[in-house]
Amino acid sequence: MTIINEFGSSNHKSIVKNWFNSLRDKICRVMEEIEKEVSGPNISSERVPGKFEQKSWLREKKESGGGGVMSILRGRVFEKAGVNVSTVQGEFSEEFKTHIHGAEKDPRFWASGISVVVHPLSPFVPAVHMNTRMIVTTQGWFGGGSDLTPVFNNHWETKSFHGAFKKMCDEYDGSYYGKFKKWCEEYFYLPHRDEQRGAGGIFFDNLNTGNWANDFKFVQDVGLTFLDIYPLIVMKSMNLAWDQDQKDEQLRKRGRYVEFNLLYDRGTLFGLKTGGNTEAILMSMPPEVIWP
Amino acid sequence: MTIINEFGSSNHKSIVKNWFNSLRDKICRVMEEIEKEVSGPNISSERVPGKFEQKSWLREKKESGGGGVMSILRGRVFEKAGVNVSTVQGEFSEEFKTHIHGAEKDPRFWASGISVVVHPLSPFVPAVHMNTRMIVTTQGWFGGGSDLTPVFNNHWETKSFHGAFKKMCDEYDGSYYGKFKKWCEEYFYLPHRDEQRGAGGIFFDNLNTGNWANDFKFVQDVGLTFLDIYPLIVMKSMNLAWDQDQKDEQLRKRGRYVEFNLLYDRGTLFGLKTGGNTEAILMSMPPEVIWP
Repeated sequence: MTIINEFGSSNHKSIVKNWFNSLRDKICRVMEEIEKEVSGPNISSERVPGKFEQKSWLREKKESGGGGVMSILRGRVFEKAGVNVSTVQGEFSEEFKTHIHGAEKDPRFWASGISVVVHPLSPFVPAVHMNTRMIVTTQGWFGGGSDLTPVFNNHWETKSFHGAFKKMCDEYDGSYYGKFKKWCEEYFYLPHRDEQRGAGGIFFDNLNTGNWANDFKFVQDVGLTFLDIYPLIVMKSMNLAWDQDQKDEQLRKRGRYVEFNLLYDRGTLFGLKTGGNTEAILMSMPPEVIWP
Repeated sequence: MTIINEFGSSNHKSIVKNWFNSLRDKICRVMEEIEKEVSGPNISSERVPGKFEQKSWLREKKESGGGGVMSILRGRVFEKAGVNVSTVQGEFSEEFKTHIHGAEKDPRFWASGISVVVHPLSPFVPAVHMNTRMIVTTQGWFGGGSDLTPVFNNHWETKSFHGAFKKMCDEYDGSYYGKFKKWCEEYFYLPHRDEQRGAGGIFFDNLNTGNWANDFKFVQDVGLTFLDIYPLIVMKSMNLAWDQDQKDEQLRKRGRYVEFNLLYDRGTLFGLKTGGNTEAILMSMPPEVIWP
């Protein structure tokens, strides 16, 4: 691969956007396959394998454009799974531009990304989140990460998830995994509960080492690592039987997920407060939740 | 009643605190009576009338004190009803004191209040919220209000609710109802959905006309008006049959309630971010919610 250093080139923007779309297709295909394979005692014969439905949206703001495609599956393994891709451009408002790298003097931006949130039906299958993005202002960088949210102490699942990301990170930089794991822990934390949202993973932002091609390859590998490890985690426990108490425990845990996303998640708050697509942003909400 | 103008007198603080406690007792008694009277087709014979359980909490911060009592009922008319009373004192942090009337130079405060949130089991019975409080810094004022959240177009209920508060407000000041109704509409609004949270009611803050006794009487009447009208609204529709589609519509509507409280409600955000009692603050969360 040719080494290219420019985030702003239209060629790179197009490559990145196409990658997010193709990753989306891969993820959706694998999840639909898993939907066909489940056979646990809690899966009634009436429940047919879920399929993704797509819905596009356009950004309607003046002097800005772009849009995205939401893919949503309501299934028998994945009670609700959303995969969003979007590519938007425009200008940050006065309020926001001072908070964004490289937007202080020139508020124009371009952003493309993929975001995956999965809420499984079984309380034994951990929920998961994966997101990667490229942002271009007068500067350019990648961001993203992936984190696992089990309901119970799924040791094997947590260890496997972290192990996969550590192995991948170590191929790029020995400091990445430790740094990005810590960042994840700090980010997915609910101060009012003094609880982590889940079992962690990796989180990174402002990634620009000066080697665009290598940074982009890392970002691609975040998506591919997610695509390697999460299906294994799902298939390990998706056929186990669960009872109502265990399901209730999952519904309670999902309440914490909602609290985190609406109270603290920067992407959610930033999106909702800057006129983003509400339906796409709130696709992350779990399908059913209790606060008993 | 003797006219007294001082918010800061310990006598007044004590009177106000006692009123909130006695209002709490009245509200809980009436709701427990309604729990006994329901007989609709969706109320299975196994469901026994709900009773309030109380739990006290103490504020654990340095140089501050007080606490509160949570009362919670999980019943067959009221799926989840929470009544919180609290009286706390302390000092606002550097971050907050500039946002609070009269706390800029002297950050000490005293606050006492009652907060009621009711999520009925039946989708035909509107949810409701009522809150009144007295705050003392170097200044003093009352705040509060009450608003109704029906799932469907409950015209009679909405009209009766507004009518009761209008009648009461008009006894004090011809401008109150119009002003407080508008304030309520502006406050309970979800910009990302372009939706009102519910059917409105009244909302007021910084109430200090110079006549403490009359302002306190108004605040008492807000509580008593709620106590008059809400039971009538509940009893009108609590015995109607509902089906799963109607219940699902309620669970969806509750999602908007969660979004409002966690994204915009000043009391919730302020409480959670200043080390308030999480369990008491989040008692407002509905018992079951869907984001389908």
